[in-house]
Amino acid sequence: MSAVSRATSVAELVERAQAGEPRAVARLISLVEDRSPSLREVSAALTPLVGGAHVVGITGSPGVGKSTSTSALVTALRAKGQRVGVLAVDPTSPFSGGALLGDRVRMQDHALDEGVYIRSMASRGHLGGLSATAPQALRVLDAAGCDVVLVETVGVGQSEVEIAGLADTTLVLLAPGMGDGIQAAKAGILEIGDIFVVNKADREGAQSTRRELRSVIAMTDRADGAWKPPILLTTATTGDGVDEVVEAISEHRSHLDDSGELERRRLARVRREIEALALTEVQARFAHLSGDARLDVLAGRVLAGETDPFAAADTLVETI
Amino acid sequence: MSAVSRATSVAELVERAQAGEPRAVARLISLVEDRSPSLREVSAALTPLVGGAHVVGITGSPGVGKSTSTSALVTALRAKGQRVGVLAVDPTSPFSGGALLGDRVRMQDHALDEGVYIRSMASRGHLGGLSATAPQALRVLDAAGCDVVLVETVGVGQSEVEIAGLADTTLVLLAPGMGDGIQAAKAGILEIGDIFVVNKADREGAQSTRRELRSVIAMTDRADGAWKPPILLTTATTGDGVDEVVEAISEHRSHLDDSGELERRRLARVRREIEALALTEVQARFAHLSGDARLDVLAGRVLAGETDPFAAADTLVETI
Repeated sequence: MSAVSRATSVAELVERAQAGEPRAVARLISLVEDRSPSLREVSAALTPLVGGAHVVGITGSPGVGKSTSTSALVTALRAKGQRVGVLAVDPTSPFSGGALLGDRVRMQDHALDEGVYIRSMASRGHLGGLSATAPQALRVLDAAGCDVVLVETVGVGQSEVEIAGLADTTLVLLAPGMGDGIQAAKAGILEIGDIFVVNKADREGAQSTRRELRSVIAMTDRADGAWKPPILLTTATTGDGVDEVVEAISEHRSHLDDSGELERRRLARVRREIEALALTEVQARFAHLSGDARLDVLAGRVLAGETDPFAAADTLVETI
Repeated sequence: MSAVSRATSVAELVERAQAGEPRAVARLISLVEDRSPSLREVSAALTPLVGGAHVVGITGSPGVGKSTSTSALVTALRAKGQRVGVLAVDPTSPFSGGALLGDRVRMQDHALDEGVYIRSMASRGHLGGLSATAPQALRVLDAAGCDVVLVETVGVGQSEVEIAGLADTTLVLLAPGMGDGIQAAKAGILEIGDIFVVNKADREGAQSTRRELRSVIAMTDRADGAWKPPILLTTATTGDGVDEVVEAISEHRSHLDDSGELERRRLARVRREIEALALTEVQARFAHLSGDARLDVLAGRVLAGETDPFAAADTLVETI
């Protein structure tokens, strides 16, 4: 990919992305993801253009059918004439760009649809992680006129709670099976779910998983007037129940608007983003210290028992 | 729990922990975990005493039998006369201290054994996360004379890679089932595993899971002379195969010693710890800024399109 260093080029790319040109969208995401020199310029150009897209996070354990569900949601949203962005975040992969994993093949149903942008995004090895990189990509999709952006985690680890932090609405997917309710409780996803979906509802045990989930959710504290997360059943492979999920997303959005919660969530999201960017900058400064304040030197002294980690951290902070 | 603020008290606690007194160990872990005022003092007192314990991380998806395997490993290590610490880290829970979850009941087999320390540790909501808090708890168990400390993740999310970062040896647990190899690859755990264990080996498919895993691992790049991760079969509920896991841990330790890799891993671990503590301090300073540099004010300006997140982050960094 060629570098974009001219102000005119960034402005032109943004204009073309706003007009819905897929290549301009892809190019801008690459620029923000690669932390190119024009990243700041891109961010400054996009910031005033965003806010229109509703961001839906999709999370769940491996094997519950996240990719299939995401694809089915795209189909349902497209049928309603909505423009859809898909950001498939893989916190464990160093690869970005195209669809790499076997189970993402289903998304290729949408590859030729001009109303759908699909993007895989790696976050491993990216300074600041998801909190620093994903919001930039979301801004590109938002500015490109997406009505809904689906953020899906690929793989496990490091991600559920972070994805919820990025989203206006968080969908938690489960599949029928013993102990799902307990596993969900352990994973801490009960608090982050705005909508729960028991996928693979054609399998035995879907109703009992729903019941179990309902009783676990009933035990979590919620304020008066708070949103009551619905528990829906889907079979993503056939599309059964997916329209109801789209409907629930829409109802949750209305709740967010009416309660002022949308503003609060978005403010919290930007707070985290700014903080992550600032900490990333500080971390970069740590990495460039020299002499006795070098991290390697400090770590060696701690291992030797000459100093303790807190004193070493103080040295680091005071030096920058 | 009463506060410990006197230097003599900390010194006394450390002395009693070194003598193997369980209550002193528990008290010290609470002190470091609660970030009590004496945290720094405790850390300074412990740092010269540590290095003797071999830290084994145990990771794997929910349902593979992590708790049962940890308990079986404790039994096997105790049979060899080793003192064992268990740190069960739950990145999603705000609760610490006792054993809370149903499946931890098995650990109660060891509750009356004076050669075993068991501790649950939450990391949610703790500034700096696992990287900042777990090393302090590991130091307590190390100083208390544990020969081996098992660090087990409870629940999913946020943790696999972090646990590997804390450990000298990382055990990756799997269970027989379709697609395990692919799921493992997606989870990025292939690179972090020093020893792979297919648990529930009495179930159908254990051998094929091992074969699949072996072929996936064969494809990962490893340097000449590098450790070749064994793939072992266990049935943790009966203890079958667990002695072989203990043996493999011991062989891996020899490899770490001989190759100089132990020193490298521990240096990297302390580096991350110092960095995490320093970033936590910086983050705390961010939270205490006032006026136009307040995070809320900056986030509001970004949402209003008046500034972009990078410029806001610059403001934050320059102000501290």
